[in-house]
Amino acid sequence: MLERIRIVLIGTSHPGNIGAAARAMKTMGLEQLALVAPRGEGINPEAIARASGADDILERATLHDTLEPALTDCQWVVGASARSRHLPWPLCSPREFSARLPGEMQGQDSTVALVFGREDKGLTNEELQRCHTHVHIPTSADYSSLNLAAAVQVLAYECRQAWLTTQASTADALPGSAYPFGVEWDNPLANHADTERFFEHLERTLIDIGFHDPANPRQLMARLRRLYMRSRMDVMELNMLRGILTRVERLQDGNGKPADQDDASR
Amino acid sequence: MLERIRIVLIGTSHPGNIGAAARAMKTMGLEQLALVAPRGEGINPEAIARASGADDILERATLHDTLEPALTDCQWVVGASARSRHLPWPLCSPREFSARLPGEMQGQDSTVALVFGREDKGLTNEELQRCHTHVHIPTSADYSSLNLAAAVQVLAYECRQAWLTTQASTADALPGSAYPFGVEWDNPLANHADTERFFEHLERTLIDIGFHDPANPRQLMARLRRLYMRSRMDVMELNMLRGILTRVERLQDGNGKPADQDDASR
Repeated sequence: MLERIRIVLIGTSHPGNIGAAARAMKTMGLEQLALVAPRGEGINPEAIARASGADDILERATLHDTLEPALTDCQWVVGASARSRHLPWPLCSPREFSARLPGEMQGQDSTVALVFGREDKGLTNEELQRCHTHVHIPTSADYSSLNLAAAVQVLAYECRQAWLTTQASTADALPGSAYPFGVEWDNPLANHADTERFFEHLERTLIDIGFHDPANPRQLMARLRRLYMRSRMDVMELNMLRGILTRVERLQDGNGKPADQDDASR
Repeated sequence: MLERIRIVLIGTSHPGNIGAAARAMKTMGLEQLALVAPRGEGINPEAIARASGADDILERATLHDTLEPALTDCQWVVGASARSRHLPWPLCSPREFSARLPGEMQGQDSTVALVFGREDKGLTNEELQRCHTHVHIPTSADYSSLNLAAAVQVLAYECRQAWLTTQASTADALPGSAYPFGVEWDNPLANHADTERFFEHLERTLIDIGFHDPANPRQLMARLRRLYMRSRMDVMELNMLRGILTRVERLQDGNGKPADQDDASR
């Protein structure tokens, strides 16, 4: 899907921005770049430097005098628009764009174009009217000066999000969410029985050392439970904590006795 | 809400990236920038040029020798991580980060830090272990070279998305995702400075009682950090744990002494 999304840059002034846009595209898995009538030198050494290893995208970029040929084979054309123009046009947020994208690309050959305008004045009304939809990246009311490559980055990121959604639903098993921490963990989580044994151990130790008075428990154990339950302990963490408790108990038992009897005391 | 989100850049080499990050922040309404030990010139004319009108953010940026002072008042510290490290840590996607953010910032003074590492090698394990959560921007498997300012742009954009959500639903009843635990909490969450003092106290105590050998640390403190960071301790829980540690230290000090001298020993 991502290989059928084309980034179209119209009238770009700064070659560095073309390079940075290529880099932004490549990080998100996009491949197709079309340059329409760049106002500067187009792809020059600065562009290549800023592409930082994404120069294969620059090499394969197509160059056009006008917008039309860059859009010929596209089924869905979306224009990045800084603000709504005098003639209202269908408009979506980047999130809505992302949500629509998989459906728009359902057809085997469906190609989508994302069109970006000039650094200083964006797309003309004529260009905007060649788009099915406009997408507006919400910016601060006080400062909306989004860099061209930064805008490409945000929408390329949303393209990748859309693609990840399709991957997750096809494979069905969503890897990240299978683990409570969003990442493959190094140890199994502690089960209920082990966790309860830990809490018994904790309470016994706190009583032993005179920190906890069962006759006046207040909410001590409830609060400690809440704290440790929240963290979803794994078995290694639980064993570490029990090791600490065992050590503290020996200290308590050894209190007043020579230190070398500690280990024999339990 | 957006004014209480701090972008922390550690060891940035290229001043241009600092400027571009400031610009990315400002387009999304973020204001707080903290620079930790920049390796280049820091804020120089190139940074100001790339900020392109966001130089007020550069002027107000704070400069720190180490990460600690940049995080002192933060309740939630999120580290941008290129990939999972050897010790798994709670991880979220930018979308999940965005969804969690309003709840994390419910408290009037809650401050959130988003920490970004060096252009060439990201954050160190030690820096990553100071974070509650890591956030990973999904990139292409073939090319993951996300520019620093581009990464700031994507996450700043997600911050703004989160804020827009709260604007849309202010009139509505509290959404279920409010507060990090999905429910109104009884105590404020501990801030970074208090949390670090707890870890110092914990480590000191574990050394005192002979459980932890700094000469052979293995991953003990890293694992305990991960456990407690994950649970997002509130101030009362943290004080309870410190009370337990203080009690254990007195036990240790009192070892071999008459019990009635315990309390006078500190």
